[in-house]
Amino acid sequence: MNDYQFEIQRRATKKEKPAFDQLIFGRNFTDHMFVMDYHADKGWHDGRIVPYEPLQIDPSAMVFHYGQSVFEGLKAYLSEDQEVLMFRPYKNMERLNKSNNRLCIPPIDEELAVQALRQLIAVDRDWVPNVEGTSLYIRPFIISTEPYLGVAPSHQYKFIIIMSPVGAYYKEGINPVKIAVQSEYVRAVKGGTGNAKTGGNYAASLKAQEVAEQEGYSQVLWLDGKENKYVEEVGSMNIFFKINGEVVTPELNGSILEGVTRNSVIELIKDWGIPLSERRISIDEIYEAQKNGTLEEAFGTGTAAVISPVGELFWNNEKLTIGGGQTGEIAGKLYETLTGIQKGKVEDKFGWIVKVDEEKAVTTAI
Amino acid sequence: MNDYQFEIQRRATKKEKPAFDQLIFGRNFTDHMFVMDYHADKGWHDGRIVPYEPLQIDPSAMVFHYGQSVFEGLKAYLSEDQEVLMFRPYKNMERLNKSNNRLCIPPIDEELAVQALRQLIAVDRDWVPNVEGTSLYIRPFIISTEPYLGVAPSHQYKFIIIMSPVGAYYKEGINPVKIAVQSEYVRAVKGGTGNAKTGGNYAASLKAQEVAEQEGYSQVLWLDGKENKYVEEVGSMNIFFKINGEVVTPELNGSILEGVTRNSVIELIKDWGIPLSERRISIDEIYEAQKNGTLEEAFGTGTAAVISPVGELFWNNEKLTIGGGQTGEIAGKLYETLTGIQKGKVEDKFGWIVKVDEEKAVTTAI
Repeated sequence: MNDYQFEIQRRATKKEKPAFDQLIFGRNFTDHMFVMDYHADKGWHDGRIVPYEPLQIDPSAMVFHYGQSVFEGLKAYLSEDQEVLMFRPYKNMERLNKSNNRLCIPPIDEELAVQALRQLIAVDRDWVPNVEGTSLYIRPFIISTEPYLGVAPSHQYKFIIIMSPVGAYYKEGINPVKIAVQSEYVRAVKGGTGNAKTGGNYAASLKAQEVAEQEGYSQVLWLDGKENKYVEEVGSMNIFFKINGEVVTPELNGSILEGVTRNSVIELIKDWGIPLSERRISIDEIYEAQKNGTLEEAFGTGTAAVISPVGELFWNNEKLTIGGGQTGEIAGKLYETLTGIQKGKVEDKFGWIVKVDEEKAVTTAI
Repeated sequence: MNDYQFEIQRRATKKEKPAFDQLIFGRNFTDHMFVMDYHADKGWHDGRIVPYEPLQIDPSAMVFHYGQSVFEGLKAYLSEDQEVLMFRPYKNMERLNKSNNRLCIPPIDEELAVQALRQLIAVDRDWVPNVEGTSLYIRPFIISTEPYLGVAPSHQYKFIIIMSPVGAYYKEGINPVKIAVQSEYVRAVKGGTGNAKTGGNYAASLKAQEVAEQEGYSQVLWLDGKENKYVEEVGSMNIFFKINGEVVTPELNGSILEGVTRNSVIELIKDWGIPLSERRISIDEIYEAQKNGTLEEAFGTGTAAVISPVGELFWNNEKLTIGGGQTGEIAGKLYETLTGIQKGKVEDKFGWIVKVDEEKAVTTAI
């Protein structure tokens, strides 16, 4: 661990912090950020912790034109013992490298990235909020910075980690949301970038989201791009259904993001002995299940919201109520268990928690 | 036209210019750029011409994370009479607004954008290269700049125009290129963003391009995302074939970019009385036509390369030579005619050329 020591340039004066009981998602950022540069001649180099401040980037930088970028999202929590706990950071850095591969971005050293995160959190430790329901949202991302207008992989990149103290992602909290099936716009297709966490997927989703909101729905249920028939994701989350006692979720087919929360939910459900399958699920099957009364639950999973129950589905001009519009038993139990593990209140039998202070050698060196 | 007067802040000292007979595409940028801001409360405002310099952008700016961006590409040429001629700038600004609509970016005033371009070129007029085969490449683009990590349309944007004196896009010039049919990776699908000029489409294309280059091919021929069967684009160009005396090009189906050069080529071919149809073209049809000797020509069209003849197609482990590997008659005539019109050597019967100096009121005001 002592191999990863980064230069730290601290702010002269700390920023004023927002009230931790009134946090809005993604609006406030901590005092510092981690930055590391890549150049084709030098590889990744000069990892450093510096004050959070605007980036100076050439207007011809490739990220502005050809969208070569990837990102991750994860959270750290303050436990009742005042320890800062990160949730599965290695899993996120592993996925970052999968995204890098698809986007032709050079891989990062995953251990270095986690150590960078650890040291950054230690520097901005007083930004980890201590109010119920809050956490420190962490956004590692990579952008292509070469000043060049040709369509080709960039020879220069920046890997940056910024952090934001956040409240709940949905103002409604764990209350069920209403979602609309989207059959005109497509988020991703096999052979595309759907299973990479890259900006273009999110840019492509905005129009459908706008339409859904105008019709009173808070999220979009995405169908596959080839047949417009199979369920893929909900908003920017993975989706699960409980049908006739079995939990089902779309299998990873190349156009679905391999969510860290999705993976954690699958492990928990299997551990609980509840039947679960990853397979293709058509929207017709969901419709039939709702009609014959076997559609017991539906919920989205993602880092920002953790678990987001679905109370109503709009499809083919029909409103389908799910689970009486209430949070289902599995969704509720998953939310309690996952947030419990994340905050150190529930035993972490899976080894998902990484303590920021665990490596004394690193933190004392700061 | 006098309504569009922008504040001009000139550089103190001009940059050193590259040798105009040794230009590399997209590497050098002129002394100034046009910048205009958008804020949800104020609309588009503060259009200005300023020195070309790095942008200062918050690390949480949405463009870095969710890829909400659009761009255009067009060219200006120096005529033999030393006039600066723009090629179809209104068509590009019209398409920019179509892309804006798909990406949930507020529309720009197209006339304002063309006047901004006109004034910017006038300020950097000595950057329009005067060597055979060169031109001034113009890159208008819009990026989302709101510092916010939620997935939603940004409330803040920047519209920027930068310019680069360029030589030929392909070092080989008008010589035929070898292209490989791509059947694993997909560029776009109906319902996605394929017909918008947005970064994510280009980011998605890099991996296939990398694979093609490793196999000795300079471009990728894209098939449709649904059936992996119908020809869509070549690299970042539109594609045309001449089969048994008729020119055919894929119809605009929602996943194909509506190229300005594509449109110009169609108008020229119709004007010449050559049969042309826009329709679905399967890769099997191309294969059959090559086998039975009726595939006479293939060529790509785009602003950067203008016309790019295709001499060889690689599909299903088979190399298919097209037109004896030589530039075809139509491709050659299109190249000569289009570049002739662009430089004022061939009569512009379509009204495609817009002279930078035409509006004396504007240029003398600078």
